Amino acid sequence: MLQTFSMMLVKLGGSVITDKMAYRTLRDEVLRRLAEEISSSGERVIVVHGAGSFGHVMAAQHRLQNGFRDNAQLLGAAQVMEDVRALNLAVITALRKAGVPSVSLPPSAVARLSEGELSMLDLSVFRRYVDLGIVPVTFGDVALDDRRGFGICSGDQLMESLAKEFSPRRIIFCTDVDGVFDSDPNIESGAIMLQNVDRGTLDRLPRTQRCADVTGSIFAKLETMLRMTSFGGEAVVINGLKPGRLAAALKGEEVVGTKVTGA
Amino acid sequence: MLQTFSMMLVKLGGSVITDKMAYRTLRDEVLRRLAEEISSSGERVIVVHGAGSFGHVMAAQHRLQNGFRDNAQLLGAAQVMEDVRALNLAVITALRKAGVPSVSLPPSAVARLSEGELSMLDLSVFRRYVDLGIVPVTFGDVALDDRRGFGICSGDQLMESLAKEFSPRRIIFCTDVDGVFDSDPNIESGAIMLQNVDRGTLDRLPRTQRCADVTGSIFAKLETMLRMTSFGGEAVVINGLKPGRLAAALKGEEVVGTKVTGA
Repeated sequence: MLQTFSMMLVKLGGSVITDKMAYRTLRDEVLRRLAEEISSSGERVIVVHGAGSFGHVMAAQHRLQNGFRDNAQLLGAAQVMEDVRALNLAVITALRKAGVPSVSLPPSAVARLSEGELSMLDLSVFRRYVDLGIVPVTFGDVALDDRRGFGICSGDQLMESLAKEFSPRRIIFCTDVDGVFDSDPNIESGAIMLQNVDRGTLDRLPRTQRCADVTGSIFAKLETMLRMTSFGGEAVVINGLKPGRLAAALKGEEVVGTKVTGA
Repeated sequence: MLQTFSMMLVKLGGSVITDKMAYRTLRDEVLRRLAEEISSSGERVIVVHGAGSFGHVMAAQHRLQNGFRDNAQLLGAAQVMEDVRALNLAVITALRKAGVPSVSLPPSAVARLSEGELSMLDLSVFRRYVDLGIVPVTFGDVALDDRRGFGICSGDQLMESLAKEFSPRRIIFCTDVDGVFDSDPNIESGAIMLQNVDRGTLDRLPRTQRCADVTGSIFAKLETMLRMTSFGGEAVVINGLKPGRLAAALKGEEVVGTKVTGA
């Protein structure tokens, strides 16, 4: 659906706003700064944040990803929802302190999965808050699954659904590295950052480099981003730990990062 | 809709779990005990909690009750949503620590108002969590209003909608007094507690006593409760500050309080 206004979609990666190595550890100074960069841009945004160390450890421990198996998981699911809400509360607090009114829209309440795929997101509620001038904030969370009882709804699944609905002018992924690399820059000293990616770049990526990333293949990630850009605008992957980059990306300025553009 | 299982609907009043006199002051020991009374009962419940000192002050200050007037209210609305989420996080944490898995279902995400009246509540999401064995927890919150932009969705509005849907065996209101009195017990030393209320009792209440309560007329409150009991079961108003009363009410035992029974 075409919009009369222009919208930005911002993902605050769990690796940026939390210390992924330590359970429930917030990077509050980083979060405070990112909220101020959003505020100072004056742009209309929707924010999606990852769960980072507030979600992944317990979700894995209780095997929530594959759905309901036994009642012993229920307290685990509740614990994960509690933990990600603590993180989400920090995010909406940081936004409010930066002067940005926001509302938390948890997937456990507004999304449904079917065998792990996002099958429904109540987009009308997002739209209503956007129209009011209140920034919707959603996040990686436990959600109901029609087939499995419950499952994990990731920030990236939410990003794709929101991109399709709102045709954002720019889709910004804040991560803890400068962009998308052809191999893991934390392991390979010779890792090369991809500056611009389109369908052609992707097709030319050698097969050996298609599975080089620690958190899933680059190929799959770039495929998702390319699909998102097909709904309009471009996607950029930037380093949220570097001051000013989110602000620059929101203003449409050139910024260090990987730019993904549709066909 | 008739249920094959039996359900209890519990309201934790804002005056019980918070100190209404001091902004954002939790009564954490009371909350911990009430969560354990819910846990030990072994009953299937839905929990609704008030906002107390986490919601009322700011909501009044920003005049949210009458809906959207100007953009200056937006940060106020965001602040109220943030504050009640902090309280809600304390409630779901207390339940989890007592061994009760719960999920937060905020009205800002799952309810809609129309001129201040609750016009939609996504009851299917409540039902799905109940069926999974996860306790839905909802609360007084800001919610979208079809006519006014936004408004305040109260715990009591949620109680009525949930009572209608789930036909609970018992509807328990935890307040900070022993029951419903014929005048304000904090002001009138001769205030008499009503033990049993039905339609006849209500009709016999003298007109002068119908507006005796500080937070709204007794008459209106009892009317609402009578309407709720028409969906099945009985309603009881008990003192949540007195240990054991919620547990007793959940077990169906006789307990100090006001019992409201339908025709």
